[in-house]
Amino acid sequence: MTAPEPAAEGSATPEAATLAVAVDAMGGDRGPVEIVAGARQAQEELGVPVLVVGRPDEMGDTSELEVVPASEVIGMHEDPGQGVRRKKDASLVRAAEAVRDGRAAAMVSAGNTGAAMASALLRMGRLPGVARPAIATPLPVPGTTHTVLLDAGANPECTPEWLVQFAKMGSLFARERYDLDEPRVGLLSNGEEESKGTSLVKRTHALLSEGVGINFVGNVEARELLSDAADVVVTDGFTGNVALKALEGGMKFFVSSLLGVMTASEETKAAAKVLMPGLAPLLEEMDPDTTGGAMLLGVDGVCIISHGSSSARAVVNAVRVAHDLASRGLVGDLRRAVSA
Amino acid sequence: MTAPEPAAEGSATPEAATLAVAVDAMGGDRGPVEIVAGARQAQEELGVPVLVVGRPDEMGDTSELEVVPASEVIGMHEDPGQGVRRKKDASLVRAAEAVRDGRAAAMVSAGNTGAAMASALLRMGRLPGVARPAIATPLPVPGTTHTVLLDAGANPECTPEWLVQFAKMGSLFARERYDLDEPRVGLLSNGEEESKGTSLVKRTHALLSEGVGINFVGNVEARELLSDAADVVVTDGFTGNVALKALEGGMKFFVSSLLGVMTASEETKAAAKVLMPGLAPLLEEMDPDTTGGAMLLGVDGVCIISHGSSSARAVVNAVRVAHDLASRGLVGDLRRAVSA
Repeated sequence: MTAPEPAAEGSATPEAATLAVAVDAMGGDRGPVEIVAGARQAQEELGVPVLVVGRPDEMGDTSELEVVPASEVIGMHEDPGQGVRRKKDASLVRAAEAVRDGRAAAMVSAGNTGAAMASALLRMGRLPGVARPAIATPLPVPGTTHTVLLDAGANPECTPEWLVQFAKMGSLFARERYDLDEPRVGLLSNGEEESKGTSLVKRTHALLSEGVGINFVGNVEARELLSDAADVVVTDGFTGNVALKALEGGMKFFVSSLLGVMTASEETKAAAKVLMPGLAPLLEEMDPDTTGGAMLLGVDGVCIISHGSSSARAVVNAVRVAHDLASRGLVGDLRRAVSA
Repeated sequence: MTAPEPAAEGSATPEAATLAVAVDAMGGDRGPVEIVAGARQAQEELGVPVLVVGRPDEMGDTSELEVVPASEVIGMHEDPGQGVRRKKDASLVRAAEAVRDGRAAAMVSAGNTGAAMASALLRMGRLPGVARPAIATPLPVPGTTHTVLLDAGANPECTPEWLVQFAKMGSLFARERYDLDEPRVGLLSNGEEESKGTSLVKRTHALLSEGVGINFVGNVEARELLSDAADVVVTDGFTGNVALKALEGGMKFFVSSLLGVMTASEETKAAAKVLMPGLAPLLEEMDPDTTGGAMLLGVDGVCIISHGSSSARAVVNAVRVAHDLASRGLVGDLRRAVSA
């Protein structure tokens, strides 16, 4: 990398105000006006300078915000690689360039996940020594910090060496994101015994057991993902994606069934009202809007990927997390950890 | 296979009374008395002759039931292969032998899943042409028949050809279990596009698209498992196990959170009482006791594997399903489909 990159440089805690966050205004299912509203709210509430990147005439009111114009949009279902190569003036590409060029310390997008990855990879570049960047997705756990699942979908097929690197990067991410001293890192398998798993899992287990500078706690099963069994769970991007989407599908099933029961009659609606103060924090915890988004680990800059249906509130949370991780110098720490 | 095997022979619907079901009395976390109670209930309610297999002095009251004595037990956490090889008089082994020898048309166990598989495989044998038996697990879907997920854990690593065979066997199972004419078979992947997935998934997709006598509907994502997107979802045993356990963990998380909210105060308990008539069917649907258990497809006999925590009611459901599938001649149909 030749371009300056504040987040990677920042070792201690640089001045908050200097670390701007670039927000892809065109990403997400709710449209640019919602995203820009969240960006403004973030700038006001957090005191973080926010750049909104996209088509100025579609963003609505951008007063007080710095606008980085970008005339093109990569759609939610567009091929990521093609989109990034062909649309040089896409909002996602320009957001990644803002980080590369030092105008922002981090980028946030609720758009096409693959295109966000490709933009970050092609414009910010990979950290030296990183074989493959991975998506780290935080999962809610009752009463304690989230479990970080990675890779949640960037690399469908992996080698044991890549998984070891994911384990190192995930451990560092959990340490800085959740203030954990020695995050417990588990390996996703179909049983806790080290004899369980595919050959990929067994070979990775052997490598992690040799000691690679992380707190490896052995295999964990998918039923432990929402429990306190581990702080970080490592897997390939295919399995991680399946686990994540199974959880999503299960939650959707349960929440919609529950709402159906609650709204069946006047009597049940009244009963639901009594339970709501207790249920609301639970539903909020399950809500992807509150987790601050997933992070692409291994590129030369902070890149936060929000849920496609992100609300203004989700954007505020994502900007908070992006700014926090940039302030802590996560990228510089990842660079050191991976090259070590 | 040299031994007679009624289930495989039966093409139409043989007399119900002739098709006995062997129940492993020693399997499951609740102990033999609970299992035997379920066996008796099944015999009484369904009019199906039930053989209980295990240690006679630990079974409690066995009046009216035929007892097949077996002096050994393979524990829940014992190595399956070793257990079956060393414990020739284990209840699971004797239950599989009862099917092999034609004393029963089907076996049911709530014990060690791996040992049930190994017993069935070693004693009943594989159907001719079957590369690997697979575990088919029904998942609840609101308002319609279950989605059959296979392989749910028997084979952590698979070839495309095995997955094609799983697709054929799963399709036939869904047809006979749920009376579906042309079950829709999906392939589990990390995206719906056929370009998505690991090389295993892509190669399997290509084979299934060539037309193998089933109704292939393309890739499905894990979030569709509890939806009506497909009747059968095919995957390797590692991914299937992860998806299943992620769903289990998610449900457990949700149910325990909900119960916590409901029992927080006298007021919430009263409100919960109002919602219970609506919630009960939902919770029952989620309850593994009601699905009748998973089936091992590809061995020369009906082998139903119940959840480890199976209650007497779960045993009744498993015996019903086992008997029903034996009556329909599922094993004979599988034999023809695989060799075709």
